[in-house]
Amino acid sequence: MASREAAPAEAPPRVPSPAPAAAAAAVVAPAAPSKYSSRVVLRTVLERSDGGLGLVGEKLVVGGWVKSSREEKKEAPAAPAPAPPVQDKVVGAEHKDVSCVELFQTRIPIFRSIMKVFGGGGHPTRQRIEAAGAKPGPVPSPPPPSIALLQISDGSCVATLLVEVDSSLASPSLLLPTGTCLLVEGTLTKPETQGKHTVELKAENILHIGMVDQDSYILSKKRLPLDSLRNSLQFRPRTTTVASVMRIRNALTFATHLFFHDNGFLNVQVPIITSTDDEGSSQKFHLVVLPGLTDSKRDQTVVKGSDGVSVEAIKAAAREKSKLVEELKRTDSNREALVAALQDLKKTDGLASQLEAQEKLKRGTPMNAEEMKFFEDFFPNKTYLTASGRLHLESYACALGQVYSFGPRFQADRSESHKEAAEMWMVEVEIAFSELEDVMKCAENFFKFSCKWIMDNCAEDLQFVAKRIDKASIDRLQSILSKPSVKITYREAVEALKKAADNKEMKIEEGGALTAAHLSYLADEIHKSPVIVYNYPKEVKPFYVRQNDDGETVAAFDMVLPKVGRLLTGSQSEERIDLLSKRMKDRGVPQEQYEWYLDLRRHGTVKHSGFSVGFDLMVLFATGLTDVRDVIPFPRSFGKADC
Amino acid sequence: MASREAAPAEAPPRVPSPAPAAAAAAVVAPAAPSKYSSRVVLRTVLERSDGGLGLVGEKLVVGGWVKSSREEKKEAPAAPAPAPPVQDKVVGAEHKDVSCVELFQTRIPIFRSIMKVFGGGGHPTRQRIEAAGAKPGPVPSPPPPSIALLQISDGSCVATLLVEVDSSLASPSLLLPTGTCLLVEGTLTKPETQGKHTVELKAENILHIGMVDQDSYILSKKRLPLDSLRNSLQFRPRTTTVASVMRIRNALTFATHLFFHDNGFLNVQVPIITSTDDEGSSQKFHLVVLPGLTDSKRDQTVVKGSDGVSVEAIKAAAREKSKLVEELKRTDSNREALVAALQDLKKTDGLASQLEAQEKLKRGTPMNAEEMKFFEDFFPNKTYLTASGRLHLESYACALGQVYSFGPRFQADRSESHKEAAEMWMVEVEIAFSELEDVMKCAENFFKFSCKWIMDNCAEDLQFVAKRIDKASIDRLQSILSKPSVKITYREAVEALKKAADNKEMKIEEGGALTAAHLSYLADEIHKSPVIVYNYPKEVKPFYVRQNDDGETVAAFDMVLPKVGRLLTGSQSEERIDLLSKRMKDRGVPQEQYEWYLDLRRHGTVKHSGFSVGFDLMVLFATGLTDVRDVIPFPRSFGKADC
Repeated sequence: MASREAAPAEAPPRVPSPAPAAAAAAVVAPAAPSKYSSRVVLRTVLERSDGGLGLVGEKLVVGGWVKSSREEKKEAPAAPAPAPPVQDKVVGAEHKDVSCVELFQTRIPIFRSIMKVFGGGGHPTRQRIEAAGAKPGPVPSPPPPSIALLQISDGSCVATLLVEVDSSLASPSLLLPTGTCLLVEGTLTKPETQGKHTVELKAENILHIGMVDQDSYILSKKRLPLDSLRNSLQFRPRTTTVASVMRIRNALTFATHLFFHDNGFLNVQVPIITSTDDEGSSQKFHLVVLPGLTDSKRDQTVVKGSDGVSVEAIKAAAREKSKLVEELKRTDSNREALVAALQDLKKTDGLASQLEAQEKLKRGTPMNAEEMKFFEDFFPNKTYLTASGRLHLESYACALGQVYSFGPRFQADRSESHKEAAEMWMVEVEIAFSELEDVMKCAENFFKFSCKWIMDNCAEDLQFVAKRIDKASIDRLQSILSKPSVKITYREAVEALKKAADNKEMKIEEGGALTAAHLSYLADEIHKSPVIVYNYPKEVKPFYVRQNDDGETVAAFDMVLPKVGRLLTGSQSEERIDLLSKRMKDRGVPQEQYEWYLDLRRHGTVKHSGFSVGFDLMVLFATGLTDVRDVIPFPRSFGKADC
Repeated sequence: MASREAAPAEAPPRVPSPAPAAAAAAVVAPAAPSKYSSRVVLRTVLERSDGGLGLVGEKLVVGGWVKSSREEKKEAPAAPAPAPPVQDKVVGAEHKDVSCVELFQTRIPIFRSIMKVFGGGGHPTRQRIEAAGAKPGPVPSPPPPSIALLQISDGSCVATLLVEVDSSLASPSLLLPTGTCLLVEGTLTKPETQGKHTVELKAENILHIGMVDQDSYILSKKRLPLDSLRNSLQFRPRTTTVASVMRIRNALTFATHLFFHDNGFLNVQVPIITSTDDEGSSQKFHLVVLPGLTDSKRDQTVVKGSDGVSVEAIKAAAREKSKLVEELKRTDSNREALVAALQDLKKTDGLASQLEAQEKLKRGTPMNAEEMKFFEDFFPNKTYLTASGRLHLESYACALGQVYSFGPRFQADRSESHKEAAEMWMVEVEIAFSELEDVMKCAENFFKFSCKWIMDNCAEDLQFVAKRIDKASIDRLQSILSKPSVKITYREAVEALKKAADNKEMKIEEGGALTAAHLSYLADEIHKSPVIVYNYPKEVKPFYVRQNDDGETVAAFDMVLPKVGRLLTGSQSEERIDLLSKRMKDRGVPQEQYEWYLDLRRHGTVKHSGFSVGFDLMVLFATGLTDVRDVIPFPRSFGKADC
């Protein structure tokens, strides 16, 4: 155990200050301290090309969670005399006089600092180590001196940092459980024996311990399968696999914005709440407004915007209103004044029944359908959660040229597909003055750019996930960059499937839809590469897809990936109003919902095309995982909306 | 009218090909043609430092919508003899044999090209100009020769390009209406007389005309006020002001991702559908699932995932199930087999009632409350549209360190505030190992970075919007960069307001909440700059905010901007479970909803802090606009969800 008695570092790392007014100490530490937190991010140490060697000897503050640990018996130290062990529970119930997580002043010799914890040591403020989360218990008898060897991760990279903590600093029993949170100051050293780590940290000050109750902490068990982890969404990102998946997802998110920015696209945030049915191909979530009833604070704000209006005043206004309505029915004189008065009362319209229904719910009285209905009238029309933003995006493409959107889309689908969830993020693109070929090229370039981006920026994560999940996943990514996608027409796809179809599931008839199984067969078995299928029969694609000159097919395409299936779907939109109207009529699409959409053809219509990417499926492809619920931070699917 | 007879350009611009299989012609045009559409983006011409002068003489294809126009009588041309005018309606009802928007081959002398339109001119494929959107009408008598002078915009920048179209190419009556869409090939020239334009385009081929019905096109009228435009959301981005606002919004979106990416944050997409109430400070949208009934295709997929299952089969299964349940109640023998059988039948659970309710709705029979309820059971618990993602984000911060989210958030608020809408985008940030001071710094840096980004990247748009909306808006942006925000405690804010309060509205009592009016007064009147107010009394902030050592205040802050009001709100989160639980109990927050959240304190708790930015309000600040509905592409607010 070297370096304990080393000279104090010249430039102490940044001291977090509990009082915002106090200026933070100057940052000079060469190991890139985090700008906005009181520690050095581990990635900046561990992912250096020298593995951190160039930082050896530096004093750092690092934080993270224990991934694995062991305890080693300690040889008797020379001097000074071993400090008494830290109590398991330093902080009691009285939080008031404890300034938690304060950094020991690094210029004070370490022994004095520790003594201060127990004796107050001549310093006016009491400085303590907080062991948060611990239950008060009896003070244990001093254990024999030992060293806790802790592998900690702060979620910034795959690699962990080995931290050595002498039992004189904190009892190993506090530190060893998996999941324990640690903020620790120490010196970076080269391990005495060559192991898998290039550097390790010798702890000198423990600044914070966030304890774990091993019995109830789900991650105490080794290697939980992914489907079990889905029941503990709040802890899932603490596993190495899910953390890697989420970092890859993050990189793909940034790559998306970067690609479209660099190609001159404008981001447009399309609405989630929509009054149109979009593609009409799935069930929708319908919106109603219910008053919140659980939080006392919220109750006061249910009729926000009408502060100070009492139930009585609202009821009086409602009575007044009914009287006026009656009068309007009876008389023709003084009509204007009555209408004006009615308008004035309209402000309180509904508030009385809202408050009444709210009280009813509070008492637990069930509401009838009519009362339920009251809460639906937030919007005058039926509203849904959007399943696709492409129609809305068209409106912006027909004004700004090249636009894209990236956001959550919804379908209330009761199926149990591993490739679908109730809430999924989609990248949607729309380009004015473009045709099918243009967007097929754009879709392919976007996909390739994204694959290259993560290969350049997430190598460690991709390798870790490949090792754990699917060894072929990196090869698949690499092959994307090395060759163009296969492009075949629907007709060619059907021919190929007919030839290959030796099982029932693959049976296909000319003109019928290509199922997920068909598409996967094309990518997985026939071409063993991404496949773009285009020019579909018009019957199997949405009403807004542009009819080809043959009158039979439409300018639509799908892009299918090995293992994942259909990643994206795109089309040229029908810009000719007569053909579009006819198509809507043939399909029974309610034209009145789409007047605004038809307007885009009535006035200054233009050829335009676009596509929608299942973003979560892209993460699936990148990681080799098979269930979208494992790549979505908080997945929602039929029967499941935890957290 | 020069250059009509100029030698054909050596490198024709890219030819859009209607057949995806055909390779597109090589792109050599120096005026950066758009990669994914068949034209040069106007920004790449008009925003060059030379205003496009260096491109004079080049042949370009440009597209856009007419912003303004006039017609000029033409002097008699020398040679060749004037071509017969183009018919108003070339394309009739029979679309099949028309290949729309085909580019005339630029190497063929222009006169021959035009003749081809009418006579077929020796080329095997019939090439035609499409005038889409036009109704068939009588062929007009030839008008006198003239030139249409059209200012067109493609939405890529504020500036417009002047396009001169000879009446021999297309009848001015087709082109002149505001909003007409045009795809045109021509040569870039220097105007004969020095005007406000540096370059203009002499049209040689009209490739597409998207006509406008002037009587029903809302933008035919000059300068509609913004509130009227809200009734025509589909056309709004075609106005110069809204287009600029949306480009600024786009730049702020990219700046957001860039700032957090560059600072080592990971993007986490928090769920929109949530089972927790989050801050509990506003009304929520509640979700139910209703079967879609308007689209025949959709009806078939309501019970998606159970293809081929008939109502009868489902009903039989349900009957079978009830029988099994009865048997289970009666007997203890053979229990395991019965449970297994029951499990098997569970797949069809609810499908029968779903189909029945669906048929009922189809027939128009209203559903009762119980039947309604069926459609609520997509999720086993109550679900809402999220009002804030911060609690979910905490879970990821307590694993990955520094995270942010950017997405839509919801409140079913019936107030009529111009600063609120039912659906708004928020940037949310959470940082582990950080305290209040850290996130205040992060919030301020983020805000300044965004302001600088748009000043560097949207100068033209900012200037245009300032000219139209609020001349002081650029000064306000500039002042953000030149000085740090004012930071005052809540107590200091109250003192300042007390001193300044000479009107009733500003009245304030120690310990009370600061209203929007109070906050604005601080920023607009007292400090005339952004103000950060921190250390609020614990009663006025959410339960999860960390209690300060004084036991009275909490580590929360707000950032308030001149004119806009509260832009963002942040806090250090309470990481101590005993204090958090007590706070929840005191506030009547239902703890059972938050078990997952409390878990983060039970296992490996850590100090962490974060903030939420009203992204739409940032756009308001940047543009000087006053109503969020004017900066949101498709705004939703009480009583309004158009499109």
